[in-house]
Amino acid sequence: MPSNRTRRIRLLLSYDGTEYHGWQIQPNLPTIQGEIETALAQIEGERIQLHGSGRTDAGVHAVGQVAAFDLRNPIPAGNLRRALNRLLPRDIRVLEVTEAQTDFHPRFNAKRKTYEYRMLRAEVCPPFLRRYVHHHPYPLNEEAMIAFAPLLDGEHDFSIFAAADEKDELGHSKVRTIFSSRVYRQGSSEDDLLIYRVTGSGFLKHMVRNIVGVLLEAGKGNLTQADFLRRLDPYCQIPCGPAAPARGLFLINVEYE
Amino acid sequence: MPSNRTRRIRLLLSYDGTEYHGWQIQPNLPTIQGEIETALAQIEGERIQLHGSGRTDAGVHAVGQVAAFDLRNPIPAGNLRRALNRLLPRDIRVLEVTEAQTDFHPRFNAKRKTYEYRMLRAEVCPPFLRRYVHHHPYPLNEEAMIAFAPLLDGEHDFSIFAAADEKDELGHSKVRTIFSSRVYRQGSSEDDLLIYRVTGSGFLKHMVRNIVGVLLEAGKGNLTQADFLRRLDPYCQIPCGPAAPARGLFLINVEYE
Repeated sequence: MPSNRTRRIRLLLSYDGTEYHGWQIQPNLPTIQGEIETALAQIEGERIQLHGSGRTDAGVHAVGQVAAFDLRNPIPAGNLRRALNRLLPRDIRVLEVTEAQTDFHPRFNAKRKTYEYRMLRAEVCPPFLRRYVHHHPYPLNEEAMIAFAPLLDGEHDFSIFAAADEKDELGHSKVRTIFSSRVYRQGSSEDDLLIYRVTGSGFLKHMVRNIVGVLLEAGKGNLTQADFLRRLDPYCQIPCGPAAPARGLFLINVEYE
Repeated sequence: MPSNRTRRIRLLLSYDGTEYHGWQIQPNLPTIQGEIETALAQIEGERIQLHGSGRTDAGVHAVGQVAAFDLRNPIPAGNLRRALNRLLPRDIRVLEVTEAQTDFHPRFNAKRKTYEYRMLRAEVCPPFLRRYVHHHPYPLNEEAMIAFAPLLDGEHDFSIFAAADEKDELGHSKVRTIFSSRVYRQGSSEDDLLIYRVTGSGFLKHMVRNIVGVLLEAGKGNLTQADFLRRLDPYCQIPCGPAAPARGLFLINVEYE
């Protein structure tokens, strides 16, 4: 019989976002939060609310998402991980289950988050990567992208890079601190991956995909460094160009104190 | 206007077999051959028959399948590759298109084929690998598997390893030559992949998955070396144990003179 003492449990999660309408629970649509809450309800015998470190968009993947919830069931952490992985679809995996402080909050306590965006330059995209990279076999000035990316380091107003429906929201600061923003090659072959990796205090909705969209514009030769920097002026009113597709984006980790 | 001169075209193909009922065309079911023939018909303006180096089962993948067909359309090989990749679903890719001798036959001319079977020993299977490995987190005596695999090298009657519906077919030799049959670790971590790689003159239906099934039985401690060798006697009548799941199997390449 479950005791009445409530524990706060922290989850480390990995998921393939391809088949989901993002993290946040929505009626009648498959979501990451929805699948995990359904599994938790089967273990606890009643509905449990899951809190994530933040939402990921439809189609975005995670190798290190963090979430937490309160549980009365006294099941040991190791068994809970196995029980959840048995109940969850195979494209959502619980990597770790740990007992957390009762005031731990995965969103409010998060200090740094890292995202990675994967671009494949090869002429043909291997079928096994098709869900996990943005295939871009066209010419790109990678040197410009490599040079421009670090210009985002530091504290900036990222209004230009926010999602359309968030842009005009008043009272919400669009200022974020980027600790590291880099483009680099993974591997040495021409066909290998071009990676954008960014670590920051937090990210606005669509922010990483919009940054990659602007970096790709720079790579196509459509933006000078001055054009690029102008996007850090929140009053510049330049429309942000197309966001890079969700399938290339991975939430890598969330860091706490 | 298409000329009347017929060319024989050779394709190098890669596919994710997860969503397909195998290579061979079947009415009203998605198959690799069916998808490619549909794309070819759009290019040629009439139905074209595609010949593969052999059939792969439902759910089996390929990184180097070879196929060929005759075409009247004079489209250059490079353009044909692009046209096919535009028409095909993203889980089937044409890696290379080459002009072949008019008597080239991908099945009859094949000299060696290599398959790889991927087993993941980690306790949790990353979501991104779930379609491409057989997840086996339970104890295994890998040393026994590594020791037994090379016992299959050489010419043997593989009747025991044939699919049930092929076993009793008379007049079809079940003798095949295995050039190399090996189990090894990819990477150094406990969690890394355990690979079975086999190169042979040809393979019976389900043969590789049945070999892996027997190797896994050896890994579980259910078979001595003598038990294992007894399976090379076509009259031994030992039932073959469960075939390993299709998702771990990749056709790596097909070699010609």
